[in-house]
Amino acid sequence: MSDKRTLIDLNDETSDDEEITTQGAAGYAKKPAEIVHSNLYDDVPTTSSLVSEVNENSGNYPLDAQNDHPPLLLEENALISGNITNGDARGNGQIIPDSEPIFHLRSRTAAASTPNYESLDYEVCENVLFQDEQRKRLTERFSPRKGVIRWIIFIQIGIITALIACTIDIIIEELSELKYKFLKNSVDENVPLSDASGKDLMVPFLYWILLSIVPVGIGAAMVTYIEPITAGSGIPQVKSYLNGVKIPRIVRIKTLAVKAIGVITSVVGGLAGGKEGPMIHAGAVVAAGISQGKSTTFVKDFRIFKAFRDDHEKRDFVLGGGAAGVSAAFGAPIGGMLFSLEEAASFWNQNLIWRTLVASIISVFTLNIVLSAYHGLNDFTFTGLFNLGKFDTPLKFDYFELPIFMLLGVIGGLLGAAWNSLNTKINAFRKRFISWKFAKVIEAAVVAMLGVTLACLMIYFINDCRPLGNDPTVHPVQLFCEDNEYNAVASLWFQTPEATVRSLFHDPPGSHKITTLTLFTIIYYVLSCVTFGLNVSLGVFIPTALVGAAWGRLLAMLAFYLFPQANFLHPGKYALIGAAANLGGVLRMTISLSVILMETTGVETSFFFPLIIALISAKWVGDYFNEGIYDTQIEVNHVPILPWEPMPQYKGLTAREIMSSPVVCIKLRDKAHYIYKVLKKCDHNGFPVVDDVRDDRRSEGRICGIILRSQLIVILLKSLYVENKQFWLPETTIQTFRDVYPRYPSIKSVRKLDDNEKYTVDLSMFMNPSPVRVNPHDSVPRIFQIFRALGLRHLLVINNENRVAGIITRRDFIYK
Amino acid sequence: MSDKRTLIDLNDETSDDEEITTQGAAGYAKKPAEIVHSNLYDDVPTTSSLVSEVNENSGNYPLDAQNDHPPLLLEENALISGNITNGDARGNGQIIPDSEPIFHLRSRTAAASTPNYESLDYEVCENVLFQDEQRKRLTERFSPRKGVIRWIIFIQIGIITALIACTIDIIIEELSELKYKFLKNSVDENVPLSDASGKDLMVPFLYWILLSIVPVGIGAAMVTYIEPITAGSGIPQVKSYLNGVKIPRIVRIKTLAVKAIGVITSVVGGLAGGKEGPMIHAGAVVAAGISQGKSTTFVKDFRIFKAFRDDHEKRDFVLGGGAAGVSAAFGAPIGGMLFSLEEAASFWNQNLIWRTLVASIISVFTLNIVLSAYHGLNDFTFTGLFNLGKFDTPLKFDYFELPIFMLLGVIGGLLGAAWNSLNTKINAFRKRFISWKFAKVIEAAVVAMLGVTLACLMIYFINDCRPLGNDPTVHPVQLFCEDNEYNAVASLWFQTPEATVRSLFHDPPGSHKITTLTLFTIIYYVLSCVTFGLNVSLGVFIPTALVGAAWGRLLAMLAFYLFPQANFLHPGKYALIGAAANLGGVLRMTISLSVILMETTGVETSFFFPLIIALISAKWVGDYFNEGIYDTQIEVNHVPILPWEPMPQYKGLTAREIMSSPVVCIKLRDKAHYIYKVLKKCDHNGFPVVDDVRDDRRSEGRICGIILRSQLIVILLKSLYVENKQFWLPETTIQTFRDVYPRYPSIKSVRKLDDNEKYTVDLSMFMNPSPVRVNPHDSVPRIFQIFRALGLRHLLVINNENRVAGIITRRDFIYK
Repeated sequence: MSDKRTLIDLNDETSDDEEITTQGAAGYAKKPAEIVHSNLYDDVPTTSSLVSEVNENSGNYPLDAQNDHPPLLLEENALISGNITNGDARGNGQIIPDSEPIFHLRSRTAAASTPNYESLDYEVCENVLFQDEQRKRLTERFSPRKGVIRWIIFIQIGIITALIACTIDIIIEELSELKYKFLKNSVDENVPLSDASGKDLMVPFLYWILLSIVPVGIGAAMVTYIEPITAGSGIPQVKSYLNGVKIPRIVRIKTLAVKAIGVITSVVGGLAGGKEGPMIHAGAVVAAGISQGKSTTFVKDFRIFKAFRDDHEKRDFVLGGGAAGVSAAFGAPIGGMLFSLEEAASFWNQNLIWRTLVASIISVFTLNIVLSAYHGLNDFTFTGLFNLGKFDTPLKFDYFELPIFMLLGVIGGLLGAAWNSLNTKINAFRKRFISWKFAKVIEAAVVAMLGVTLACLMIYFINDCRPLGNDPTVHPVQLFCEDNEYNAVASLWFQTPEATVRSLFHDPPGSHKITTLTLFTIIYYVLSCVTFGLNVSLGVFIPTALVGAAWGRLLAMLAFYLFPQANFLHPGKYALIGAAANLGGVLRMTISLSVILMETTGVETSFFFPLIIALISAKWVGDYFNEGIYDTQIEVNHVPILPWEPMPQYKGLTAREIMSSPVVCIKLRDKAHYIYKVLKKCDHNGFPVVDDVRDDRRSEGRICGIILRSQLIVILLKSLYVENKQFWLPETTIQTFRDVYPRYPSIKSVRKLDDNEKYTVDLSMFMNPSPVRVNPHDSVPRIFQIFRALGLRHLLVINNENRVAGIITRRDFIYK
Repeated sequence: MSDKRTLIDLNDETSDDEEITTQGAAGYAKKPAEIVHSNLYDDVPTTSSLVSEVNENSGNYPLDAQNDHPPLLLEENALISGNITNGDARGNGQIIPDSEPIFHLRSRTAAASTPNYESLDYEVCENVLFQDEQRKRLTERFSPRKGVIRWIIFIQIGIITALIACTIDIIIEELSELKYKFLKNSVDENVPLSDASGKDLMVPFLYWILLSIVPVGIGAAMVTYIEPITAGSGIPQVKSYLNGVKIPRIVRIKTLAVKAIGVITSVVGGLAGGKEGPMIHAGAVVAAGISQGKSTTFVKDFRIFKAFRDDHEKRDFVLGGGAAGVSAAFGAPIGGMLFSLEEAASFWNQNLIWRTLVASIISVFTLNIVLSAYHGLNDFTFTGLFNLGKFDTPLKFDYFELPIFMLLGVIGGLLGAAWNSLNTKINAFRKRFISWKFAKVIEAAVVAMLGVTLACLMIYFINDCRPLGNDPTVHPVQLFCEDNEYNAVASLWFQTPEATVRSLFHDPPGSHKITTLTLFTIIYYVLSCVTFGLNVSLGVFIPTALVGAAWGRLLAMLAFYLFPQANFLHPGKYALIGAAANLGGVLRMTISLSVILMETTGVETSFFFPLIIALISAKWVGDYFNEGIYDTQIEVNHVPILPWEPMPQYKGLTAREIMSSPVVCIKLRDKAHYIYKVLKKCDHNGFPVVDDVRDDRRSEGRICGIILRSQLIVILLKSLYVENKQFWLPETTIQTFRDVYPRYPSIKSVRKLDDNEKYTVDLSMFMNPSPVRVNPHDSVPRIFQIFRALGLRHLLVINNENRVAGIITRRDFIYK
């Protein structure tokens, strides 16, 4: 179902004429609206030719009395069909049989793109039932209890997210250990000496391919066949969700399960991706699940936390869950919270930040305890998690290095922008040509194979032997090297990407050849670009950091090669700066990334400065070319996410020019039959409720409120009619509506209402009586601000007499 | 001038009756509004008795058709006076001579407290002139340039704030150095041996008193006589400003000058305060000054940055300036930015954060370069500023210490809450009994003297001698100690509070006696409590941290005394945790404080965890008792700041119950004379603009827009009348109104308009045509959310026919 009012003429344009003919044939004289209007507003000419003047007039004074009244579109192309009662049709209680809803709509700017995302109802519907509940709570002193429960939920979110993160962590670690140990042994057995022929390397190569494509294939198959929404990192989806876009199935338990297995298989399979992004998603699912106190997947309602069952409350929990997820992924509580704020949050509130922080802290603490126990650390000394390895010696820098850091930032920005652009092109290609499901699984396996092959070729052709001793790797592979030496190339590839980042940060100077790192950087850059967009669950953080660390270290090595006296060129330091620059170039975040890098590597606080310098330069340069990868993904998928500022294309436009009109309205007291028909025939999600309807032209009625499709369906399902009020009134509360949240039944589940024509629905109890309204002459930047700040779903445009002029939804702000 | 509509009957209640009589005497038949209404809305009974029913009805369904129409207050107590023209009075162009504005208003909840704070106009007034400018910019491609200029301003703010901070820093350091060196020499000279009599100590004691009360007296006198708004830290004021409250003279250059001198004198004078709070204020002034490109104090207009001359733009710059100020004060860029966000910002936007961060970074960098140059460091190695001293050995902690940290947090919360409460009581006492200006100066000198005396007594009576060697102080005072020993008590007192915090963090174990620290803690606790609220410019951060560090260290020493084998009890570590706990208890911030403490002491990232644990515990415990010190100050001063959530007292209320009505309205085309009279007689700041006025009852008119008092004054001053349109129309732009920003002339500067009765003002060009409107039955939490999120100044309450029902301003949300 689409919230957008496009192309919903059930009959096409030609049939409009027919309907008008029908109407004419019915023999009713259309009572001119002019007369009704002039009854009161003598000085307002209601020229029906205004419609064509709208665009020309938009430049004039919007409140020039002449143009103040919005175009009465209906008088020109009145599409009202069916029978109209003679005489006064204004009485709200009067029912006009067989009047059809109006379906003609227009919006110049609305994006008519294919994916139909709905909006979430972040606006609290303060209808009568809600107010009743509020009043009941006031007397019950319920409200402090609600605050306490909210805290408990946030703490639970932290704990459970951490436990899930631990499980994923440990399984990945164990399986990778097994895999690379086996491969190392296989290599050692098959390549006994450096004079071996190439043929023997085939066996470990084939093993490696097998151990890559099997897990990747399993993961890709699960993602593709069971839950396609789990593909990718999940951050764009969570961000969209928090912005108010309903991404179907994003916060279900099944999604979580598939995502967890997907991440494990992909990372173990050796794809160029990390587990960090998916952790945010996992946290979000946990938060959404816990806060609702029920699982629709398992058809289990714990009958707790009922008061939190609406989109608004859920949003806050999901933000906390996301933060807990990042915190657990990186072991960085402050970084995780800031990440959520900087990247994901669209709405900000001090109390929310505060709860989010607690969830993050709890999450990191739980993670730390479990991992300490797992690693058998008994000394109970908390040293942080330092997922990317702690720098032993404090990193220092000189002032003259700042331009170098800035330069690295610029390089990061350029490489990041290029990466984003390349990735977008690859994904566009993918979307176009790889649509068959099985092909997607095969593609993932092929990319895994490609990675292994490239790695093998590198290992085979580059002779980079280093003496054993201060081994940066746990599984030194001898391969063609002398005894007491290990193959530095193999050590880069024979571990998870995260471990490789750690190596690049902390390996002593001289651990790699320049050729090795150059080739590695190029291969990994391309590989990560091809990987992100595959139908597997993987994050982009670690591969991006890895590429950055590689070229950062490489540049330091090159510079040291050219200027051997420059001993400030600590390769680990430059690897860190390179990682920051590359991350800044791809993700375009600054504060959270610098804090996360600090928290995961334990560098000095004074090192904030170079990190931030590199990140800011990278962001600035990158922003010149394109948007960050998450925003790009959102845009490519046509998710109608609202940016922080209105798009520049909207400058100078007014509400009149972007609104959709006429609007399908429902009378305050309308026939159940009519409502049923409206719901059947159009898929709008919000209907203005009007009274003072003249001649059954509902879309000219005076605004009383707005009602959601979901509410109307519940009303019809439960038969909440005026005529049988005595039966349902006592037991109908806001809970009646909450019980079906979040999976509202479709109109198809309502049985046909032919025999119920006599029933009337009184919406005054159910509708939201306070929809936000704007004038047709209001500027778009202004109404955008209102729409964004209040997290609205529908914005009603009214004329001077409080009558419906049009409706604006999320999609009207997304210019195409 | 007050934005609040209270007590503005120029005539008191009795005169209302007179006016009605006058009206009756004029012999006009009041045309009943009922008839007009029922003309269109047959089914709506307009019972004039609804007024008295409002409160009873608030519990019913708000959209029950019966109650939907707001009470037509005017029909009962119609206060319309003056002459009403016969017949049709609806024509907008018709001028009715001598009609009086309506001044009776009501608002049940409005706070009628004395200080009259106005609101800032954070809502952009999108009138015709503004739209013209927008259109012109669209063609000129001006908008990217505006973005660039904004960046330049933020960078300038960072640099200049840092330079001011440096200057203050260096002067304080130099003067303190001189002062304490002189005192040390004086002590050394007068107390040659430990067997000296007490009498000789009188000389240095008197010197000390002199060197304290002279600077403190100067500072207090300047603050008291020149600019009283500079008293205190300035953070509550900046916070209020950012919330939308106009604090007079808060962002003037004179304020900055007085504040800077005030801080220097107070810190040098030895008061228990820090320079950190005032730095935020200094940054805010710098930001406001630079962004406006003119100084009204120096009557100098640089004719630049004109597009930023409104409250909305200025607000964003002030936030950036505040962040730059904290960053410079602590040398903590991330911490500074987070401090601004957590404590000061009321509105949040991703781009703003981003600019704020850059300003902070630039600020810290500038500061670092200047201070490096000043200290003569030539090695160009950036090591951070570490204003509170860097911990040499990494701080580690064990799991079993977490409960101890939590306990420290609880203690910090209790002590902090007690401190806040005590401070509030002292200030209330002060407000009541010390109102004379000179008394305030004397009081400051007395407190300074008290501090010196207590310190001297402590030094005199406690014999705490430590061997010289690893000296924690730069000026070891021998006093009564043996040779090769120094007096540990004197070393605590013979330096600035900031340096004492440093000592407590970093002094080796065993630097102080338990008695010394106990007494010091108690004295400083009381002293800082008495000091904060004096009429001097001082921040509360450093004394709070100092008290916390003292008792933290003390507790560690006590515990070590009891359990000598517990060698985890590093006194510096516990001093740091104690400082965090005490800060959390007093200020109630968490994230920013932990980051600031990290950035200023350079502790390990893993030490985030204990800091946050202590801060959270302290905040939780403290919040149970009262609010943070800044919020308390705001509350005590009756600043109408809007909290993040509506107050619980408002639950269940509707707009009808908090709005002020009837409202003084102005017709779209109204007489200049009438406007002049309205402005003369009432001090409202916003007037709804109405048309369709019947019988000259403007307050029942239909809403067209809203106009500000300042705009009306400009219109009258510049004679922008309909009749002489040809003269002013071509050259009148939005700039005409911006030129007088921010010090709008008063109505008194407009010459009397008696002879101008023929002139008419057409407001359609000037008014804001898109005021935000709500229904009378909307719930207060909902309209609060709208008011808060959009940063409004006036919120119009309209009835179903788009007619004025009431108006809601900031003060209506502050329950008394």
